[in-house]
Amino acid sequence: MRVFVPGHVTFFFSPRPEEGGSIGVGACLDKGVIMEAHRGKKRGDLSGIGREVVYYVSKELEGEVHFSGRAQLPFKHGLGMSGALYLSVLLSKSIELGLGKTIEDIGEIAHSLELRRGTGLGDVIAQIRGGIDIRLKAGGPKTGKIEKLLPRKNYRVSIAPLGELETKEVLRSEKVLSRFRSVGEKLLREFLESERDLELAVELSKYFFEKTKLGKLMEMSDEFHRLGDSLDEKGVTWGISMLGKTIVSISRSGIERRVIRKTISRYVKPIECRIDPCGARVI
Amino acid sequence: MRVFVPGHVTFFFSPRPEEGGSIGVGACLDKGVIMEAHRGKKRGDLSGIGREVVYYVSKELEGEVHFSGRAQLPFKHGLGMSGALYLSVLLSKSIELGLGKTIEDIGEIAHSLELRRGTGLGDVIAQIRGGIDIRLKAGGPKTGKIEKLLPRKNYRVSIAPLGELETKEVLRSEKVLSRFRSVGEKLLREFLESERDLELAVELSKYFFEKTKLGKLMEMSDEFHRLGDSLDEKGVTWGISMLGKTIVSISRSGIERRVIRKTISRYVKPIECRIDPCGARVI
Repeated sequence: MRVFVPGHVTFFFSPRPEEGGSIGVGACLDKGVIMEAHRGKKRGDLSGIGREVVYYVSKELEGEVHFSGRAQLPFKHGLGMSGALYLSVLLSKSIELGLGKTIEDIGEIAHSLELRRGTGLGDVIAQIRGGIDIRLKAGGPKTGKIEKLLPRKNYRVSIAPLGELETKEVLRSEKVLSRFRSVGEKLLREFLESERDLELAVELSKYFFEKTKLGKLMEMSDEFHRLGDSLDEKGVTWGISMLGKTIVSISRSGIERRVIRKTISRYVKPIECRIDPCGARVI
Repeated sequence: MRVFVPGHVTFFFSPRPEEGGSIGVGACLDKGVIMEAHRGKKRGDLSGIGREVVYYVSKELEGEVHFSGRAQLPFKHGLGMSGALYLSVLLSKSIELGLGKTIEDIGEIAHSLELRRGTGLGDVIAQIRGGIDIRLKAGGPKTGKIEKLLPRKNYRVSIAPLGELETKEVLRSEKVLSRFRSVGEKLLREFLESERDLELAVELSKYFFEKTKLGKLMEMSDEFHRLGDSLDEKGVTWGISMLGKTIVSISRSGIERRVIRKTISRYVKPIECRIDPCGARVI
């Protein structure tokens, strides 16, 4: 059985280690991980995905299957790809073997893996739902609380991946965590009290970035700052995906999209996608 | 903005009036209501949908819009079309006017309308999620608890609509409600403890139908019983959608589908669809 799990950008978040996760706002992308589990004896092709981690994750469920799959977005760029990988491996296996698990059962295991491996704090619950997510209570899909905003049809998202970053490296210091916590909480409150749309969430990500001093922490390159300035000059709505060295721009017309593409292309090849309204599913 | 909200079949349920809804198992269909809200001054076309109810529902949110839309399934057949209508009107309006409501905000209003108008007890929370739903705690999307099973890609659903039925007529008697409550609860427990797949849910709907004496209550026609017998003879997996005079058959191959189509066509024109994995969304 073949499944798709969307990638996920986080615009701002507030860690809640005591509740096992985080609260915040983000959005699912229509690119992520495509994974197929099969009962045959032959190993399949895995493109852009490490074989070891796939089989390590697979052990969380009983039974033996092999996997073919591909990553449509890069790992280690704050695009929720670890969550997408865990979910896709477990979901495809569960459906292939008829284990009768709900997507919430699978999501709880994937979320625990994120916490255990230090790869994420809140992508999984959002990746199950799709759309623009407002995470109101931290946790996996069974304990957390999430609401979904539906995107207007015509949003396009252009992604500039400017370098790798390990989530757990940034989340190591207590001082940094506490800064994230207070800034993220403030922004979530502000978002809930205002217009609650994608543009605002993207704009607030820059505020989160500044107030948490992430630029220094992530050792952002000159490229990052220059690209940000160029996008500002062109009047583009852009922000940063947490936690990654990744600039995310949104557009609602072809003209705008071409301007963004041209601007980003001076630094890195842009990845273009849309908001995924649906979340993890069989394809 | 144009939205799609899936129709929904309920295989069995247990009313929970004290919690404002029901628990049970069902599935979303890839046919339902398509609705578009627009700010123009001209009224749009509404096909298969009463104009009065659309504008009545619209008043639940501030602002003025007009609607164009169409029903892809019949009302009053236990296909969750009232929930689909309420959700589609409010969701399209909210997005068109940029009201910043989450799908859960909208779902709570639609669910209240269902209860107030006596048109449904649990479709809305399922229609927001899509897939095969296990409703574990009654209520709207913010207070209820639901988990989702993902359907295998190749299921097809054939629907035989055998006559109209008003939900509220059946749910009028306390004695009937209490019978539904105990049978539905027993079946949900059985479903959770077993394989949890679509076939089982469909089979259990017949058990629910028999144990609650729905046949007598709904004054099922001879046609209904003869069609059931014919489907049994052909070895088809079929059941009944609650609460409607509607037979639902599932198939996983073209041959099986053709047998079902031919059998149903002797009585009524079958409606063919698939399981919708996604739930209410912008299209």
